[in-house]
Amino acid sequence: MEIDVSFYRTICMKVLLVFAHPEKQSLATSLCTVAVRQLEAAGHEVQVSDLYAMHWKSEVDRSDFPSLAPDARLKVASASGEAFAAHALTEDVKAEQQKLLWADALILQFPLWWYSMPAILKGWVDRVYAYGFAYGVGEHSDRHWGDRFGEGKFAGKRAMVIVTTGGWEEHYSACGINGPIDDLLFPINHGILYYPGFDVLPSFVAYRVDSLDAQSFEVVSSALRDRMRTLETTVPIAYRRQNGGDYLIPSLQLRPELRDPNVSGFAQHLRALTDASSTER
Amino acid sequence: MEIDVSFYRTICMKVLLVFAHPEKQSLATSLCTVAVRQLEAAGHEVQVSDLYAMHWKSEVDRSDFPSLAPDARLKVASASGEAFAAHALTEDVKAEQQKLLWADALILQFPLWWYSMPAILKGWVDRVYAYGFAYGVGEHSDRHWGDRFGEGKFAGKRAMVIVTTGGWEEHYSACGINGPIDDLLFPINHGILYYPGFDVLPSFVAYRVDSLDAQSFEVVSSALRDRMRTLETTVPIAYRRQNGGDYLIPSLQLRPELRDPNVSGFAQHLRALTDASSTER
Repeated sequence: MEIDVSFYRTICMKVLLVFAHPEKQSLATSLCTVAVRQLEAAGHEVQVSDLYAMHWKSEVDRSDFPSLAPDARLKVASASGEAFAAHALTEDVKAEQQKLLWADALILQFPLWWYSMPAILKGWVDRVYAYGFAYGVGEHSDRHWGDRFGEGKFAGKRAMVIVTTGGWEEHYSACGINGPIDDLLFPINHGILYYPGFDVLPSFVAYRVDSLDAQSFEVVSSALRDRMRTLETTVPIAYRRQNGGDYLIPSLQLRPELRDPNVSGFAQHLRALTDASSTER
Repeated sequence: MEIDVSFYRTICMKVLLVFAHPEKQSLATSLCTVAVRQLEAAGHEVQVSDLYAMHWKSEVDRSDFPSLAPDARLKVASASGEAFAAHALTEDVKAEQQKLLWADALILQFPLWWYSMPAILKGWVDRVYAYGFAYGVGEHSDRHWGDRFGEGKFAGKRAMVIVTTGGWEEHYSACGINGPIDDLLFPINHGILYYPGFDVLPSFVAYRVDSLDAQSFEVVSSALRDRMRTLETTVPIAYRRQNGGDYLIPSLQLRPELRDPNVSGFAQHLRALTDASSTER
């Protein structure tokens, strides 16, 4: 049976874009506007969490857990879990959690600073990803190590990053000195997005943004519009589900027969396209 | 000629330990104390930047550059470079830069939150690592792409991370679901420490810290004391120097003849111990 793709393309999605750049006149802000306009033109509903404009608080500390006794030892995971269960997290965190529950798709947009996200965005993750919400959910047994890495609160939702960097694409290539961009972004794509269940789409990365002329900006914008246009149809990165059978439990090591002697590092956690393992969906 | 190791072991080093944990009663704080006491017992001089205690500001924003005109567009690299050159950075940032210049060794200690450092420590890097200080230094030509990755302001100094995590060591092993710990820490070790010139020592990682009993704590403490005892003698990670001949300039890609078909990802940037390439020191 042939699927009518045009039907799927007109489904309205709810999109949360979390944006982290301090300058309204920046190229990053312009690209954010390009993305939002394209999404809205396609009929999607968009909310933007502009972290700098919101004066987002970056640091996890005692003030995040108002019901914690002043002399109690702060254990972040348990304090966060108790506050989440009691609806006692701070209002700014609760608002972001509601947006995440509302959204069908999450986009994190940020400049690559020191090979990762700016502190303010890391602080969004550190504070919004409460225990019981983004981790510490699901059955925990010798067959199922919590709902995570492909399962979790955000299963069925999509996510991706939009990254701007001053560096050259070659410097982030397979043998480029910075390390391959997909490996640099693995702790975010796999560890922050796939962990609580998102289907993670390939990253959108704009290089050499400090020297873009009008023509190059249009090329980048056009590529970004294409990615926004296909947000609901782009094939996600083929990460392996934790509880699908590919990993031994509790060691959570990839089964020996699935290990590829020709790859090392993070690439082990990608299903080969020909792989008929149990994580195939 | 035989080197008198005992002589080197008694050299007094100046050590800066940047510490990022919100709870004074935490295991992380206890390990920080273990490290500092061991270093001081060995005759080293130690300064601790306890970021939470200092109420460190995490976000790079306009207020970091007081001399920037209110209506000027904030370009972080150039604003940072101009303020650094004019000694116009904020006092908190200047104080940390002075500590870095003072130190012979830098230690970053943090809990692994979402596979990276807490926001407050990322904010220390984002703000203290000014242009002209930690990047944007040295000759920039077709033979030498700036003093970075093995050269730079901190060449000759040593650095390492002390990391605490609730997760299991197996989950961070070569085929563990989180990804290998050395790869997760590569953006920090290579991208934040090696970039401005530090010789980077292997990471010290304490696993399952949420369930350590007194005996396990003593095992971890003892291992940490050993690492502090050998801070000046431990062999650094064998990263390849950018301008030593291993990389093509300007593409900064590893020379084809040095690429190892059996490794992928970040491991390409390690010299093999048998490698007689020009980055050998």
